[in-house]
Amino acid sequence: MGRRTEVRLAGSGGQGLILAGVILAEAATIYDEKNAVQSQSYGPEARGGASRAEVIISDADIEYPKATELDILLCLTQESCDRYVQDLKPGGLLLVDRDEVNEIKAAREAEVKVVKIPIISTAKEKIGKALVANIVALGALVQITRVVTKDALKNAVLGRVPKGTEDLNLNALESGFELGREYKKT
Amino acid sequence: MGRRTEVRLAGSGGQGLILAGVILAEAATIYDEKNAVQSQSYGPEARGGASRAEVIISDADIEYPKATELDILLCLTQESCDRYVQDLKPGGLLLVDRDEVNEIKAAREAEVKVVKIPIISTAKEKIGKALVANIVALGALVQITRVVTKDALKNAVLGRVPKGTEDLNLNALESGFELGREYKKT
Repeated sequence: MGRRTEVRLAGSGGQGLILAGVILAEAATIYDEKNAVQSQSYGPEARGGASRAEVIISDADIEYPKATELDILLCLTQESCDRYVQDLKPGGLLLVDRDEVNEIKAAREAEVKVVKIPIISTAKEKIGKALVANIVALGALVQITRVVTKDALKNAVLGRVPKGTEDLNLNALESGFELGREYKKT
Repeated sequence: MGRRTEVRLAGSGGQGLILAGVILAEAATIYDEKNAVQSQSYGPEARGGASRAEVIISDADIEYPKATELDILLCLTQESCDRYVQDLKPGGLLLVDRDEVNEIKAAREAEVKVVKIPIISTAKEKIGKALVANIVALGALVQITRVVTKDALKNAVLGRVPKGTEDLNLNALESGFELGREYKKT
């Protein structure tokens, strides 16, 4: 069995997490030549405005397409962190928005690697568009984990974002890389 | 176990099939209050430009998130029809673009219900935008199968399409409903 990496992107509707999941999966498959499954499961929480997207990336065929033990969890809201932190495997990466997520269950905080960065405020203040927080988040996530190559991610972003927004999104991606680099230095 | 319906939307990249899958899943869950899983699996065919999206809709929890026996298969290209027609269950619905899909494996044509309609040409000629073929296809598919309610589909389309394109997409949806109604008459 090849190496399998499970990623969940969680927050609220309108944060572009499904698009982020599709971009990450396409980076892995079309540009990095791995296999991937990207999915969203919707239950009652979707009617309450929550949103989550999953990406499983593997060198080999993916037999079971649902995440069972997350390697990487991104949370852009406190609610999503409360709900999903239990699904992260010991030693896994919990990447949260520094301003939105104030509390992490203490029992889990000790078992996982927590990275707090200003994703949404960077999108708003540096890029001028809260809408690109999803791309900033992807940049940081990939800079820290290298779950896909940075070139593959860049190509996948360019392949998916609306025409005319390429520069905006590349700036957002670069800001995300920078957040990831800064974090690594600390 | 509740009633489970498995849908696959297949064609080529750029036809908006992932968005169509997301819209269908959101119609089922946010507006019709069912459960759904929406996914894309990417293998080597994705690098060749093929695209497919799956939606599983159920009244109950969805334990196994991968399609095993399709109830409904949409094919917008000959290649996707050749590849996936074998995954449709006996008695299932094969909905194809009339101008793109010229040949259906004879052994399967006898076992499934085949519906050929001019999806892409309707998008191009009636709406003036080939890009909305995905919405035309959803309209026809839902008119024929009622896998979600038409109201739910309409709301889900409005919730997902870019601002400023609402009327265009509602026209595309209405044309899809009309194609479905015409087919039913014959």
